[in-house]
Amino acid sequence: MSETELSQPEADSQQLDEDDRLKPEFVRAVLDAVEEGDSEAARALVEPLHPADIADLFELTPHEERAALAKAITDLLDADVFAEMNDYVREDLIDALEPHQVADIASELDTDDAVAIIEDMEEDDQRAVLRALDPDDRAAIEEALSYPEESAGRLMQRELIAVPEHWTVGDAIDYLRGHEELTTDFWEIYVVDPAHKPVGTCQLSWILRTPRGVAISDVMKREQTLIPVDMDQEEVALRFQKYALISAAVVDSGGRLVGMITVDDVVHIISEEAGEDILRLSGAGEGDINEPIRLTVRTRFVWLVINLGTALLAASVVGLFEAEIAKFALLAALMGIVSGMGGNAGTQTLAVVVRALATNQLTSSNTTRMITREFMIALANGMLLGLLIGCGTGLIYGNLSLGIVFGLSILINNLVAGLSGVLIPVGLERAGVDPAVSSAVFVTMMTDCMGFFTFLGLAMLWGLSA
Amino acid sequence: MSETELSQPEADSQQLDEDDRLKPEFVRAVLDAVEEGDSEAARALVEPLHPADIADLFELTPHEERAALAKAITDLLDADVFAEMNDYVREDLIDALEPHQVADIASELDTDDAVAIIEDMEEDDQRAVLRALDPDDRAAIEEALSYPEESAGRLMQRELIAVPEHWTVGDAIDYLRGHEELTTDFWEIYVVDPAHKPVGTCQLSWILRTPRGVAISDVMKREQTLIPVDMDQEEVALRFQKYALISAAVVDSGGRLVGMITVDDVVHIISEEAGEDILRLSGAGEGDINEPIRLTVRTRFVWLVINLGTALLAASVVGLFEAEIAKFALLAALMGIVSGMGGNAGTQTLAVVVRALATNQLTSSNTTRMITREFMIALANGMLLGLLIGCGTGLIYGNLSLGIVFGLSILINNLVAGLSGVLIPVGLERAGVDPAVSSAVFVTMMTDCMGFFTFLGLAMLWGLSA
Repeated sequence: MSETELSQPEADSQQLDEDDRLKPEFVRAVLDAVEEGDSEAARALVEPLHPADIADLFELTPHEERAALAKAITDLLDADVFAEMNDYVREDLIDALEPHQVADIASELDTDDAVAIIEDMEEDDQRAVLRALDPDDRAAIEEALSYPEESAGRLMQRELIAVPEHWTVGDAIDYLRGHEELTTDFWEIYVVDPAHKPVGTCQLSWILRTPRGVAISDVMKREQTLIPVDMDQEEVALRFQKYALISAAVVDSGGRLVGMITVDDVVHIISEEAGEDILRLSGAGEGDINEPIRLTVRTRFVWLVINLGTALLAASVVGLFEAEIAKFALLAALMGIVSGMGGNAGTQTLAVVVRALATNQLTSSNTTRMITREFMIALANGMLLGLLIGCGTGLIYGNLSLGIVFGLSILINNLVAGLSGVLIPVGLERAGVDPAVSSAVFVTMMTDCMGFFTFLGLAMLWGLSA
Repeated sequence: MSETELSQPEADSQQLDEDDRLKPEFVRAVLDAVEEGDSEAARALVEPLHPADIADLFELTPHEERAALAKAITDLLDADVFAEMNDYVREDLIDALEPHQVADIASELDTDDAVAIIEDMEEDDQRAVLRALDPDDRAAIEEALSYPEESAGRLMQRELIAVPEHWTVGDAIDYLRGHEELTTDFWEIYVVDPAHKPVGTCQLSWILRTPRGVAISDVMKREQTLIPVDMDQEEVALRFQKYALISAAVVDSGGRLVGMITVDDVVHIISEEAGEDILRLSGAGEGDINEPIRLTVRTRFVWLVINLGTALLAASVVGLFEAEIAKFALLAALMGIVSGMGGNAGTQTLAVVVRALATNQLTSSNTTRMITREFMIALANGMLLGLLIGCGTGLIYGNLSLGIVFGLSILINNLVAGLSGVLIPVGLERAGVDPAVSSAVFVTMMTDCMGFFTFLGLAMLWGLSA
């Protein structure tokens, strides 16, 4: 094969669309081969794919055809493919495998990927897999499992390069060349003191650019970003992002080097954490499209019932003014505009505040500034919209009083929206509650109830009528 | 200084809170020193900080105090600090600097960071800065600026290591040791043919683990993920994420190596792109809390006016049934529950679909499956909620007909929500429109209008009354 054929964009252009996703024709061709029992043809199609694309193939294959596909291409299903797979799809497949098969796959993986596969299994299956592993692998995985879920301890790999500080660059190179068993995938090496505490980090490029005789301690960078082993993975991701890290040493409570986290393990966490706020704010749970439908229905139902409570409260506010509405039914048509516009303005503020909180951009140093900022925005937009809507309504219906009441309610509800859009998530965050999960209910409750109450209340006080 | 004092978590614990953000007391102390004209004290406080934290300090400082702070700590304001800074805050500061000062900073940076600073300047200032640069730097930056905004060409750096394929590992090491002028920050080297087309990539760890005499072409990986220079940065980020890349070669339309993108430049794009959907869906624009308030008001106002259109349409649907409402005002109180519950269900579906589209998880291979899935979820939740609400209302108001009409409308509007929540964003994506920006308006329009129409329409047909 010539080299150009091997560079990826060319080689995969038959299978991948412009988004790097498998083309439907290709998926269909593989599944057709599987259905016809032609494993040979299926394997021939799948073999050239990158492990990430084989993982995708399973995600794009309907649930009920996955087992047959796995059977047809078993020998291509290596550890890398499992490491890349969506959790639910992986569970699906793992359930269909024997413990010793899972153990074979796990033993090929770095600790972090092996843990990712094993941590979601039922306890019995987990024990069976652990028993089938080498004592070394088993000890490493058991230790990783002893750290809390979603902590640095689960995320780290124990395979890393650590060297003593008295070594020279040449010593380090000889060590790396002379020891077959060392890991081959690393981007930095860690320099440790005799107690195995990290004292510096050295990029491989610095080693390569330095003569053999120079001491490692003169090449390394002493300022390091260390990750405590019990740190939450979201904080780990933010720290990688903030300090533009490629890899980082993980230390135990005694400050000893116990593992390493590399940026490629963190990238998908950054993406997930950044993307999950939108799903939480809308009550869609984790929003994984591979989640069993039963779980999705349950998560969303709970959210809808909670929102039903809010809706009932808002309805009861409207109920207070039934007499007014019976006299002047136009109010019923217009009141939804007041609550709806408030809801939209509240959602805008909420989205900005929830993102700023999640990225640690909104801290106690600038909370007051943020509240003032949102109040000013709400005031500006409330006045603009109030004027627009008030004048419009006044003219169209030839009813000045209606215009004034309507415009004024829009302004007031915009202020309610802006203030609750920032105060509610900030208050929840301070109280230790995830603002992305619960803010929307409270903000909508405020804008709905206050919207109806202000508009209908003012209409009653003003004695509005047709 | 002892080594432990130098490892970051310890050294910064006085200045940073548990989220790695500067403590308000610290920010206050710095600004107090600036205000009192004590630049010495301000510099002493700021000096130990990481460039990313100095950048944060400016973000946390109120707009009107930033210039004074910059003046007090000018000598600490190096290129790294500017590279880490929020765009709006950077523009603020850059505006206050002379072109030759900006040129000094830009010449210290890698091409990608220099471009990020210069691309946002006014054209006149840009020209002045470019004139003040070295011819080499100038040519590199001008070429980068010739690529479209947010493309790989803007994101890449031109500083990289490329070696011919006939070299040995030893040749490469000697080259790296012997050339002072080469970049020191790289994670992989690229192997190129005589036409400067990449034929392979070599991780530095592989080079370090291989004897000097081995040919580079036997160590390198031939399968590479190449990035076309005109690729959109969002696609670049997804490609890095999917294939767990640390760095990647950028090639021009002729396939020649022109630059390199490293993962640390992509991490913030991954985070931004994942986070921006929530802001777009809610009409908050880019939602940057450092954006000038005037721009924020404008972006949000436009969105609110568009939503006003939707609200007016929904109000006109209600208007059709004013006679019914005047007869039976309870309908006005309850109709908001039908539209609101539909709106919530629609938002759930929408959030999931927009995320799945943004991450390329929803493709033409599984669209039908996704539509079926959402329909099933909407049917399940619609029936559950319809039954719950229908029975509840029937019992509370002792009005069986009202219960049936109410429950049935809830079911129907849930189906409308589920289907429009998936069909609208998928349709917009196919039409080349960003579904995150425009879906919410259409989905809300559907759930509001259909909610009111179904409930009030059924009530009229059924002849409901108090």
